[in-house]
Amino acid sequence: MIDRDHIRRLLTERREGFSLPQAFYVDEAMHEADIKAVFETEWLFACSACEIPKPGDYVTLEIGTNPVVILRDRDGGIRAFHNSCRHRGSRICAKAKGRATRLVCPYHQWVYELDGSLLNARQMPADFDRGGYGLKPAHVEVICGIVYLCLAETPPDITRFRQAVTPYIAPHMPDRTKVAFEKTIIEEANWKLVIENNRECYHCAANHPELLVSLVEFALPDDPLGPAQFQELIARKTAKWDDLGLPHQPADGGNEFRCIRLPFHEGALSFTMDGGSACNKLLGDFTDPDLGSVRMFRAPNNWNHFLADHIIHFRVLPLSAGRTALRTTWLVHEDAVEGVDYDIKRLTEVWTATDAQDAELAAVNHIGIRSMAYRPGPYSPSEFMLTHFTNWYAGKMQNFVGTPSPMRIAAE
Amino acid sequence: MIDRDHIRRLLTERREGFSLPQAFYVDEAMHEADIKAVFETEWLFACSACEIPKPGDYVTLEIGTNPVVILRDRDGGIRAFHNSCRHRGSRICAKAKGRATRLVCPYHQWVYELDGSLLNARQMPADFDRGGYGLKPAHVEVICGIVYLCLAETPPDITRFRQAVTPYIAPHMPDRTKVAFEKTIIEEANWKLVIENNRECYHCAANHPELLVSLVEFALPDDPLGPAQFQELIARKTAKWDDLGLPHQPADGGNEFRCIRLPFHEGALSFTMDGGSACNKLLGDFTDPDLGSVRMFRAPNNWNHFLADHIIHFRVLPLSAGRTALRTTWLVHEDAVEGVDYDIKRLTEVWTATDAQDAELAAVNHIGIRSMAYRPGPYSPSEFMLTHFTNWYAGKMQNFVGTPSPMRIAAE
Amino acid sequence: MIDRDHIRRLLTERREGFSLPQAFYVDEAMHEADIKAVFETEWLFACSACEIPKPGDYVTLEIGTNPVVILRDRDGGIRAFHNSCRHRGSRICAKAKGRATRLVCPYHQWVYELDGSLLNARQMPADFDRGGYGLKPAHVEVICGIVYLCLAETPPDITRFRQAVTPYIAPHMPDRTKVAFEKTIIEEANWKLVIENNRECYHCAANHPELLVSLVEFALPDDPLGPAQFQELIARKTAKWDDLGLPHQPADGGNEFRCIRLPFHEGALSFTMDGGSACNKLLGDFTDPDLGSVRMFRAPNNWNHFLADHIIHFRVLPLSAGRTALRTTWLVHEDAVEGVDYDIKRLTEVWTATDAQDAELAAVNHIGIRSMAYRPGPYSPSEFMLTHFTNWYAGKMQNFVGTPSPMRIAAE
Repeated sequence: MIDRDHIRRLLTERREGFSLPQAFYVDEAMHEADIKAVFETEWLFACSACEIPKPGDYVTLEIGTNPVVILRDRDGGIRAFHNSCRHRGSRICAKAKGRATRLVCPYHQWVYELDGSLLNARQMPADFDRGGYGLKPAHVEVICGIVYLCLAETPPDITRFRQAVTPYIAPHMPDRTKVAFEKTIIEEANWKLVIENNRECYHCAANHPELLVSLVEFALPDDPLGPAQFQELIARKTAKWDDLGLPHQPADGGNEFRCIRLPFHEGALSFTMDGGSACNKLLGDFTDPDLGSVRMFRAPNNWNHFLADHIIHFRVLPLSAGRTALRTTWLVHEDAVEGVDYDIKRLTEVWTATDAQDAELAAVNHIGIRSMAYRPGPYSPSEFMLTHFTNWYAGKMQNFVGTPSPMRIAAE
Repeated sequence: MIDRDHIRRLLTERREGFSLPQAFYVDEAMHEADIKAVFETEWLFACSACEIPKPGDYVTLEIGTNPVVILRDRDGGIRAFHNSCRHRGSRICAKAKGRATRLVCPYHQWVYELDGSLLNARQMPADFDRGGYGLKPAHVEVICGIVYLCLAETPPDITRFRQAVTPYIAPHMPDRTKVAFEKTIIEEANWKLVIENNRECYHCAANHPELLVSLVEFALPDDPLGPAQFQELIARKTAKWDDLGLPHQPADGGNEFRCIRLPFHEGALSFTMDGGSACNKLLGDFTDPDLGSVRMFRAPNNWNHFLADHIIHFRVLPLSAGRTALRTTWLVHEDAVEGVDYDIKRLTEVWTATDAQDAELAAVNHIGIRSMAYRPGPYSPSEFMLTHFTNWYAGKMQNFVGTPSPMRIAAE
Repeated sequence: MIDRDHIRRLLTERREGFSLPQAFYVDEAMHEADIKAVFETEWLFACSACEIPKPGDYVTLEIGTNPVVILRDRDGGIRAFHNSCRHRGSRICAKAKGRATRLVCPYHQWVYELDGSLLNARQMPADFDRGGYGLKPAHVEVICGIVYLCLAETPPDITRFRQAVTPYIAPHMPDRTKVAFEKTIIEEANWKLVIENNRECYHCAANHPELLVSLVEFALPDDPLGPAQFQELIARKTAKWDDLGLPHQPADGGNEFRCIRLPFHEGALSFTMDGGSACNKLLGDFTDPDLGSVRMFRAPNNWNHFLADHIIHFRVLPLSAGRTALRTTWLVHEDAVEGVDYDIKRLTEVWTATDAQDAELAAVNHIGIRSMAYRPGPYSPSEFMLTHFTNWYAGKMQNFVGTPSPMRIAAE
C-alpha cells in the first residue's frame, strides 16, 4: 500500500549525488508508487514504428498491470489503446505482434475499429449505446520512427526532446529500417538499478570485454579521465562529422534525456567482436561506415545506439520491486538481406553478452541493497548521469506525493 | 489486510447488471475477504457421497487455508472435520483420498475416532482431558448423494435448495454412481471470473466447438434469442419428460441457485464428440437415453450436469486473488464397466477441452481487468445469470462488512 | 508491516506450555518481526572455524535479507562483515565459500582489506574520505571452533553459554576437524516449527527408524518414561565418562541453551545404519569410540551432536513465514582420509534421512496450523524443551514490542 508520508520522508533524507535510500529499490509498495508516479504518467519508449509497417499491424506490451496495444490505423497513423475490452475487461490482443483488420475480443467477439470505436457488440440490447464503449486510447508520439507512449490523461510536453534529438537521429533514417532481432530478458533487480547500471561505464573495464572492443568508456568529449589519444580521436572524428553535417555535441537534456555522438575506438566501426561492421548495407544515405554512435537516453525507460550500420533500442519495464524486463531490439536497413548483408549472431553477440553481464551486476546490486547495513553511497564523478537520473526520479516522486498539508505536518 | 471501509465504498459504487469493480477481482486483500465472507460461511459443494462408500473412507480438500477431511463414519453417516491435530496443529490426513480405521496424526500419533473424538494421546499426563481435544467438526449436508460442506459455526438454511432440486436430481440416482474420472486444473484467474465464465454461453459459439455438438446455447426454454426450431425442440422434449414424470421448468432459486432440465441439440444424447451416448449403462432406472441434461448451479462454487448416462460435477475453490482450482468429476452408474460400457476418453474429452478453453478465457479476462482502463461493463441479456451471481456475491460482502457506524460515517 | 500492538495482544493470549498462537507461525508480518526481534539481535550459529582455516578464506550466508561474509583475517582472527559494498550497495562476495587476498567488489572494483577497511576506490575524487567507507562489521565469537555471529550494535552477553558448554565440547577438539560433507535443504515450514520439531523425540518412534538405531528417545538421564534398562545404561556409561573426565550432566542453560552428554543404545557408537562407527579416526585424543554424544542446542537457530568420531552442526535460517533453510554439516578429524577412514554415504545417510523426514513433518505441521480451527495445543511432558523454546521466543518478542504506553492502553 502506497504511503505518501513515508515517501515524503525518504525524499527528505535523500542526498543528491548518492544512491537512493533502500526502500526506493526494494519495497513492493514503492514499486506500486513507481508505476503510478512514473510509468502511468511519463512518456515511455514503446517500440519502433517499423515494427508495425502496415494498417492493422500491432504490438502489445504491459506497463505495470496495464496491457496496451499499439497499432497502425487505416490512415497509416499510429495509435495506442488500453488492451481491455469494454464489455467485461478481457484482454483483446493476445500476441506480442500481429495483424488484424479489426480488433475482435476473443471472449464475446465485440468488434472494434482500428480507431478504437466499437463497431459491433452482438446480442446487446437495441438501446445499447456503442458510442460510449470505444477502447480507451493512450497517447503516442512518433519521433523519427520511434514510438513513445503515455498513459496519462494529459501527457507532459515532449517537444523539447523531439526538437533536440531529431537532428542526431534523422540521418540514420529509422523509418527505413526493419527489426533484425529482438530479445527480452528478465533481470532480478529493481528497474532503477537497471537504469543506473546503464548510465555509467565505471563498471565496464572489469565486466564488458566484448563491449569495450568498440565502446570508449568516456561519456563526454572532454572527459577529464580521457587520455591524450582520446582527445586526439575526438578532434579528428568530430571534424569529419562536422564535414558530413552530423551533430555530435551533447544535447542539453537536463535530467530528462541525453543525446550525443561519440566515436568508437580507433579502427572500430560497430558493436561486433572484432569491431568491424555488422551490416554491409548502411543506414539511410550513409556511405561512410565510421560514424561512431549516437548514444541517446531518455528517462525513465530507454537508451539507444544509432550507428552507421544498425540501431539498437533498449526498453526497460518494471515487473515488481525486484524484477525488470529488458527488451533489446536490433534494427538494420529495410533492404538489408540476412545472410548476405548481415549475420544475426555477429550483429547481436556483443550486446547479448553485455546485457547478460549487466543483468548479473544489477541482480547482485539488488541483493546487497537489501542489507540492513546498506546506506546510500557516493557516486563517482564518472557516474554523473546517475545523479541526473536520481534527481529526475526524485522530482517525479515529489510531484506524486506533493507537499504535506500543514495539518499533517503538525500531526507528524 | 481486509479493509471493511474500502469494501463498503466499492459496494456502493457497484452497479447492478455490470461486472464488479476491479478490486473485487484482483486484490489479494479481497481474496482474504472472499474466503472469510463467502467460503468460511456458506455451504460449499465438496464431493460426491459415492467417493467415500465405506466406513473410514475419506477425501480431503482445502477451503482457503483450511484443510478439511470428509469421511464416512462407522454408522454410514458422512462427517467433516478440520484436518488439524489438536496437539500442535499438524495436518492429519495427507492423501486426497484414503481409508482409515481411525485417524492417526502422523506427527505424534494422537488417535481420533471416526466421530472426531480423541481416543488416545500417548505420553500425555494422567490428568489430560481428552474430551476437550476432539477434532473440530464442520457441517455437512448430503443432498441426493452430493455432499455440501459449511465451515460456519451456524450454517445458513439449505432447506429451500434441497427441496427445490431433489425432484430434478433424484431420478438420476447419484447414490448409485461411481467416479469414472476426475481432474483438477489450476486457472490463472479470480474464482468469480471462473464462475462468471460458466454462467453464460454468450462466449460459446466462438470458443467451444466440442461442447456445442450437444449443448444448446440457450439457458431458458423461452429464450428470446431462440429460433423457432428451438421452441419446437423444447415443446417436443418437455412433452416427453412430462410423460416420464421428469421436472424440467426452471426452479426458483433466486440469486442463490438454479436448476432446470434442457434438451440437447436434436439427435444429441450426451457430451461426446459425436453427440452419442458416453455410457451404455444408463443411470438409475432410465431406459431412454434422450433426457437432455439437468443443469444445476449453486453459489458460490459449483455447477453440475445430470444426463441420462452420466453426471458431471464442477468444484471451484479459490487459491489466491488470481488462482483458482477447478475440479471436474465424471460419474457413471456404479455397475458400468470401463472398456465395456464406457471409455474414459470418450466420456471426458468434451469437458476436458471445454475446461481448458474456459481456463484460457478466464485468465485473459483476469489480465485485462488489471488494467487502469478497466471499468465495469454491462452484461448482455444472455448474461442474466451473471447479474444473479454478482448480486448474490454483493449481498454476502455487504453482510460481511455490515453498515458503517454513525461515528465512522462522520469521520469519513 | 509489523504491528507491535497486534504482537503484544498475541503475547498476552499465549499460554505457557502450549504451542504458539497461529499468527506467530504463518503471518509474513511476523516473519519480518522475527528477523528484527531475533535474527538481527541475537547470537546465531554461523559456521565452523575449520571452514575458513587460512587468511582470506571466507564463507557467506544470508540472515533474513542481510548478506554477510565471515572470513579469516591476516592475523588468523575471524571477522564478519555485511557483504554490501559501501559504494552503491552491491554484494561483494558471491560464492558460498572462497578465498581472497582482499575483497574486491565485482561492480566497480572498490577494494577492501580483510579487516574491512577500504583500501582503494578507483576514480573517486581526491577529497574522498576512504576512512568513512569501510565495510560494516558484525560481531563474532568463536567458541571451541564454532563461529557465532551477531548483527546487533551491542550484542547480548554470551559468556554464560561459552563457560557452560566449553567443558563438554573442548575434548572433541572441533578446531582439529574438517568438513566432510554439507547439505542445505529448504523446509516448507516456519523456522520455529523446524526448531520445535527438533526439540522433542516424541515423534521419533513413528518417523525416524534410521535415527533410532543409535539415538535414545529420552532427553534426560532421569526421564520418567525411561525403562529400567535405560537407567542401567545411563549409570554404566556415566561412570565411564566420569573416569574419562568427560562431563555429562545437563548444563543449566535455562531457556537459552542446553548441553548434555547422553549414551547411544547399547552397542551403538555413532549415527550409522548399523550403529557402528562412521569414522575410524577418532576426534581429538579419544581412543574410546563409545562416548555417546554431546547434544547441544542454542536458541534461536542451532543444534549439534558431538560424537567420538564426528560432529554434526545444524543451522536454521528463516527465508519467509513458511520457508526455512536447514544446513547440516558433518565434520571429521582433520587427518581422516575419505575412502580410508570414512565413507561419505555411511557418515551422512542417517541424518540425511532424518532431516528429510523432519522436513515433511514440519511442512505438514505448517499446513495444519493455517487452519481456522487451529488452537494452541498442550505440549506433552516429553516436549518440555518446546516450553523452554517458546518461552525464550516470547521473551524476545516481548522485548521487541515493549510495553504499551499508558495512552495506547487507554485507547485500546
